[in-house]
Amino acid sequence: MNDSTAHAHHRRTMSKFLKLAHKFNSFYLNGLQKKECRAFIVDGIQVGLVRATVTIELSRYPNVFIVNPNSVTLNPAFRDYDERSANIESVLKEMKEKKLFITLKGWRDECYEVRTMFADQPLLKMDRSATCLFGICNYGVDINGYVNHPQKGLCIWLQQRSLTKQTWPGKWDNMVAGGLSVGNSVIHTAYKEGEEEASLTPDLMKNLQSAGTVSFFYESERGLFPDTEFVFDLELPPDFVPRNQDNEVEKFELVTASETVNRILSPDFKTTSCPVIIDFLIRHGIINPENEPRFPELVELLHVPLQSLYKKCDNLLTENGLSKAE
Amino acid sequence: MNDSTAHAHHRRTMSKFLKLAHKFNSFYLNGLQKKECRAFIVDGIQVGLVRATVTIELSRYPNVFIVNPNSVTLNPAFRDYDERSANIESVLKEMKEKKLFITLKGWRDECYEVRTMFADQPLLKMDRSATCLFGICNYGVDINGYVNHPQKGLCIWLQQRSLTKQTWPGKWDNMVAGGLSVGNSVIHTAYKEGEEEASLTPDLMKNLQSAGTVSFFYESERGLFPDTEFVFDLELPPDFVPRNQDNEVEKFELVTASETVNRILSPDFKTTSCPVIIDFLIRHGIINPENEPRFPELVELLHVPLQSLYKKCDNLLTENGLSKAE
Repeated sequence: MNDSTAHAHHRRTMSKFLKLAHKFNSFYLNGLQKKECRAFIVDGIQVGLVRATVTIELSRYPNVFIVNPNSVTLNPAFRDYDERSANIESVLKEMKEKKLFITLKGWRDECYEVRTMFADQPLLKMDRSATCLFGICNYGVDINGYVNHPQKGLCIWLQQRSLTKQTWPGKWDNMVAGGLSVGNSVIHTAYKEGEEEASLTPDLMKNLQSAGTVSFFYESERGLFPDTEFVFDLELPPDFVPRNQDNEVEKFELVTASETVNRILSPDFKTTSCPVIIDFLIRHGIINPENEPRFPELVELLHVPLQSLYKKCDNLLTENGLSKAE
Repeated sequence: MNDSTAHAHHRRTMSKFLKLAHKFNSFYLNGLQKKECRAFIVDGIQVGLVRATVTIELSRYPNVFIVNPNSVTLNPAFRDYDERSANIESVLKEMKEKKLFITLKGWRDECYEVRTMFADQPLLKMDRSATCLFGICNYGVDINGYVNHPQKGLCIWLQQRSLTKQTWPGKWDNMVAGGLSVGNSVIHTAYKEGEEEASLTPDLMKNLQSAGTVSFFYESERGLFPDTEFVFDLELPPDFVPRNQDNEVEKFELVTASETVNRILSPDFKTTSCPVIIDFLIRHGIINPENEPRFPELVELLHVPLQSLYKKCDNLLTENGLSKAE
């Protein structure tokens, strides 16, 4: 098939939303195919991907990481969760001191669990600033705070991130969003972040409704971000105004659905928060098959198969006859 | 990685919903990997997959189909949509007369468009009973009719299919569902099916809300079913009762959300209509991260990447160094 044939048959003009979906899936749609990363293996199971620039640094710790042509394996001599976590942490702290990777500047002393699929038993924990160096699947919680305004129709509360935040300072973002850190359940995280970020009282949170997940795989200079967000909708009374308690928010603004569209399409919106907003706009009929010709494709790009991604990569290594790490 | 290691680390017990998601994705999760089907190529582009049993019959028409080890190609001498459609139709009608495939017993004189992605220009049309022989992506429209009942809470209208239907006779199904046939837009199909199947008047349909898509890839003895459904929610007044006009419905029943769960888990529910119901139950918070441990995986299996599937298969053929059809 040559290009001219393809163009004759395809009407694949990308809408603005689809371009955005390609942007927040930059690694899923482009990086993955290049096969430039090594599988990150813990206890015989792939849990991530490591770029060449990271592999070089990890190879300086042969007692911790075993580097092969297709994989980086955590030393199998580390027998359990605590031992694995401690050994990785000491390497990462040294890298942080050496200022090797910008992402480690954002060290949080807050850990994410490391596993292949969400329901798997975690194999270790890792500071949240470091997981993008290993392509570890991150999980977060988002609350779409919305108002059915008597005059303006459907409106959504957005927050502008604090100008002093390590990541995406000053960018526009969802009303409430937070990572799922060690020891916190999805629903607990929703309540905790709701209170800290927007003063959502238990009384307001009674209306909280689970609405699904979005999953996507973004890549930036900082690292690899396979991300799954648990999505909640919260209808708020028209007179409620969110108030921040943790100094991570510059300001909040209630915007109409059509203004929300303008915001996410602008460069001032945090790229990796767009999937949650697009999903909200789709579920509420704002983006629909009549105004988005590539609607099925857009929906699929909000739900890319991260849960089976590393399982499949694992299989591919075997299929290609390449030696596995153990 | 050996099996005992894997089992030590994984808590991958499947919930009832996940088992169902595996059932309606039988081809996506199992068949696809076996690579037993040939790519179906039209004008240099993969638009489907053909099983060995079908390939044997197609090979009897060398003026229409060119069979190669990895592909079945529609004769490139057919220059346009009409010529391709007419040539395939005459073969299919002969096969129907010979009673070679049970699916052709359900010949409908209603055609589906054939293309790789939804937004592509169709390359030909084919009777809807035949598309499963070629693994052509089907599109349909579903309306979830629901009631916020003052006593029973969220309730959903289900239909029992007519006992005389060609496919899934007597099974329980969504309130309204219909295929997207040639010449009909998504929204037109929703209105048409809503009226024919359930007497949904334009006045009731004012509340119709687009809510996304589900996509999955089912396989049965009849054939291959890569399917994308455009999903709509419709809140109905508590006193409304759907009334069928096209004799395709045995009866309707308004069931509570928890009874809906029982229905879809029973063998009396049409397997390929379950994704739409599960998606509805997820979007409305009935199935959520607290009661479904493998929630992210379940959501992903309601949105498998069909829009990129044949594009990717196409790439794989090249990667493996196999000769392509043209």
